[in-house]
Amino acid sequence: MSAVAETARRRERRERRHAAAVHTMQQIEYQVPRMALLSDAQVQRIHDISMWILAKQGIAFYDEECRQILAAHGARVEGDIVYMDEELVMRYLAMAPAEFTQMARNPANNVIIGGNRSVFAPVYGPPFVQDADRGRREGTLADFHNFVKLTYMSPYLHHSGGTVCEPNDEPVPTRHLDMIFAHVKYSDKAFMGSVTEPWNAADAVKMCEILFGKETMQQQPVVLSLINVSSPRRHDDRMLGCIKVYARARQPMIVTPFLMAGAMSPASVAGTLALQNAEALSGLVLIQMISPGCPVVYGSFMTNLDLQSGATVFGSPESQLTMFSVAQLAQRYKLPFRTGGTFTSSKIPDAQAGYESVQVMLPAVQVQTNFVLHAAGWLESGLVSGYEKFILDCDLLGMYHNWAKGIDFSDEGFALDAFDEVAPGGHFLGTQHTMRHFRDAFYRSDTMDYDAYEQWVINGSRDSIMRANEKWKKMLAEYEAPPLDEALEAELLKFMNKRKREVGFGK
Amino acid sequence: MSAVAETARRRERRERRHAAAVHTMQQIEYQVPRMALLSDAQVQRIHDISMWILAKQGIAFYDEECRQILAAHGARVEGDIVYMDEELVMRYLAMAPAEFTQMARNPANNVIIGGNRSVFAPVYGPPFVQDADRGRREGTLADFHNFVKLTYMSPYLHHSGGTVCEPNDEPVPTRHLDMIFAHVKYSDKAFMGSVTEPWNAADAVKMCEILFGKETMQQQPVVLSLINVSSPRRHDDRMLGCIKVYARARQPMIVTPFLMAGAMSPASVAGTLALQNAEALSGLVLIQMISPGCPVVYGSFMTNLDLQSGATVFGSPESQLTMFSVAQLAQRYKLPFRTGGTFTSSKIPDAQAGYESVQVMLPAVQVQTNFVLHAAGWLESGLVSGYEKFILDCDLLGMYHNWAKGIDFSDEGFALDAFDEVAPGGHFLGTQHTMRHFRDAFYRSDTMDYDAYEQWVINGSRDSIMRANEKWKKMLAEYEAPPLDEALEAELLKFMNKRKREVGFGK
Repeated sequence: MSAVAETARRRERRERRHAAAVHTMQQIEYQVPRMALLSDAQVQRIHDISMWILAKQGIAFYDEECRQILAAHGARVEGDIVYMDEELVMRYLAMAPAEFTQMARNPANNVIIGGNRSVFAPVYGPPFVQDADRGRREGTLADFHNFVKLTYMSPYLHHSGGTVCEPNDEPVPTRHLDMIFAHVKYSDKAFMGSVTEPWNAADAVKMCEILFGKETMQQQPVVLSLINVSSPRRHDDRMLGCIKVYARARQPMIVTPFLMAGAMSPASVAGTLALQNAEALSGLVLIQMISPGCPVVYGSFMTNLDLQSGATVFGSPESQLTMFSVAQLAQRYKLPFRTGGTFTSSKIPDAQAGYESVQVMLPAVQVQTNFVLHAAGWLESGLVSGYEKFILDCDLLGMYHNWAKGIDFSDEGFALDAFDEVAPGGHFLGTQHTMRHFRDAFYRSDTMDYDAYEQWVINGSRDSIMRANEKWKKMLAEYEAPPLDEALEAELLKFMNKRKREVGFGK
Repeated sequence: MSAVAETARRRERRERRHAAAVHTMQQIEYQVPRMALLSDAQVQRIHDISMWILAKQGIAFYDEECRQILAAHGARVEGDIVYMDEELVMRYLAMAPAEFTQMARNPANNVIIGGNRSVFAPVYGPPFVQDADRGRREGTLADFHNFVKLTYMSPYLHHSGGTVCEPNDEPVPTRHLDMIFAHVKYSDKAFMGSVTEPWNAADAVKMCEILFGKETMQQQPVVLSLINVSSPRRHDDRMLGCIKVYARARQPMIVTPFLMAGAMSPASVAGTLALQNAEALSGLVLIQMISPGCPVVYGSFMTNLDLQSGATVFGSPESQLTMFSVAQLAQRYKLPFRTGGTFTSSKIPDAQAGYESVQVMLPAVQVQTNFVLHAAGWLESGLVSGYEKFILDCDLLGMYHNWAKGIDFSDEGFALDAFDEVAPGGHFLGTQHTMRHFRDAFYRSDTMDYDAYEQWVINGSRDSIMRANEKWKKMLAEYEAPPLDEALEAELLKFMNKRKREVGFGK
């Protein structure tokens, strides 16, 4: 057999195995109603206070060109501070689409962001990683690859995310290239762009142009980026530079105030919500001025300090109240929104991590958050990407796919025929209805332990951490990369190497 | 100083310390709206199917006198099976009050069960106990005392509960006496009665008569009891005997079908809800026939099997859907209701226990469950009362007290003056508003770890279990019993000893 035929046969075998191995789960489309907390009057009151902040307190924009754009479109600028009135804000917000589709290189993994749908993406940004074998350590590119692979393999994560951990063993000026390449090479789900510097954002756009084509990108979002507000009331030059790059490339951004109540915002839920709304809207308005109709996401990341110790708290009841409120604010403006995540302050995936993660993630699902960043793997207030935590969180996300389906109210859903089969004190396990549904009636966990105590002891008295540890190792051992066109891959590598040489880190 | 004066002074000192030590927290009264899942038409559909079950399938009542009562009031009886039509069911349900107050021996701890209020009570029924030092073992009366004491000391448990663990070192025929005495002696919160045998229920009523007076009890509930339906479609003689005792003593009962979907009910959420409703209503109707207007609670305990292994699953998305539905059913009938708990299948308070507990407990709070049994301490599918789990759960319950308060929408709540003090990029920590609120702005956890990683390592890298272990020991070391009238105590002991002698276990 020729070498070419051999290669083709190998590839065919690989692709067949790949198709069989990946359990593709659609993104969530809720069949249950969205839950709400606030009255219309309460939403209006938050809106009003945030309009007062925008008009009277103002927001600092540390970028000359952005201030010029804002002034040219009707905002009042004094020094670095920009003041906007309600009419101006609402006029530009109205230009943003209520939902959009982000393309993935595998069209089966395109995601709709908006409406009654949720997209779950992994943890973003931790400098450290942690697992039960090696403890806590600096993240590397190998760890980055691992988390991209695990995300690719999870049927409950719909998006590859962005900085799944910081690849500290790569030079700072070029590691954004390695990260984007890894999302393309080791996954075929949609991914996020770089926001570390405007020229890094430009590199992300360039790599997407290689992958999707420049013309496609003017019509269709292909890379989603995370713009953090430097709260309180401040957009920094780095983020504003990235906004310009992505807005001009017509690519979507999540504008997220970074609010820890008591520090960057008042020590109150309502005050924090007003600031949240003012800051998010100010960034979204700028994007619409630069590129009217550019898809955007109303972002929020709100928690609070422990005011006696100054430490960050996750999973607090106050953060739950803010999440419900943020959902209603975003809906008022007809914008897709981001909140939630499986947050915890815990250093390890112990009971605290479990309690706190659900305290945040369940409300995020109940309000039907359109994009949930940090949906799996978050530990230690976001400083750590945890391998075992990632696995346990994915199981939780799986449960929410069943929640979203709601209740089947048909005669079959009521199991009417089963009642005729079972006498008082009898058992439904043997009914025809159970036979028809025993595979799909209920969510099946792959990390929770339901054994009897005696069996659990025989199996080694393993806790959640030990079970999850086994699972991620098994997944990585079984991982196979999705097919990637060789010419495309070569072109991406060529671009990467050129850029690495240009900034002095080329091989 | 005379011995009498010395005793009086000691007692005074003790009572003063006691008043200072106990952090009394009011039961929850929600300032936020109750969350809902179903449309009115969907609630009606469940109601209709449950009426079909009651009218056409029937419910077995294994007690001759109860069947006679049911027949005398208009039900159709064939053998053991009782059939009721909708008109009959609704007529008797309408007699039950929408809410009632259960008295505690300390009137400050009376609890209102119904309306927009929640009462949290500890785990009920486990034969085993577990802690980090001694592992899993059979519960004893000493353990029972410990859990009563811990419940008494928690500001987040409003009710002393019932069988906080099984006191296996006491004889079965008399341990109900020891349990009720322990609730009276070591706590002054409201408590639950015995349902192990009708004559044990009668003992509970007698002890309450000593404590509260027989006449008071005809006007006012003082002991709440848990009637489990022997699902599917079956009330056993033991529970029916207890119903007669408590209904005639005018004391409230929770009627709870015990449904694990796939076993005692169909492998579907809707079918399980229909059976739940039919069974609960059938018991509640009987109580109203025996004692019209007797306070009752619409109970539910629903989860599902893992249909491949046959194991019980807690925290499933399906169980969440049922909880929301049950709340709406109970509201339709204008009845106080019970659901929820910090359920888990886990053997220890690990991440699984954390995830599962919040998966159940948060929805229970969101639907504003009037009585939450098993709100703290549940492990291993209810087979185990866990000391550390109890402590961690109480912290979670504390958070829900803040959730219930909702958001302060006043100008002070919006911290309007703080915005004038903080420039872009500034810090709200030093504002006057934060100074005014730093003690009460946010919930303060006493078991979660918020330390920096380095500090956490210095402190011994302790997980949730180790921190909770320290806390329950400290609480038990600091415990002081609430004052109890010596004559009352003597009379209770006299009754207990008489009853123990009568059944052959007296001293």
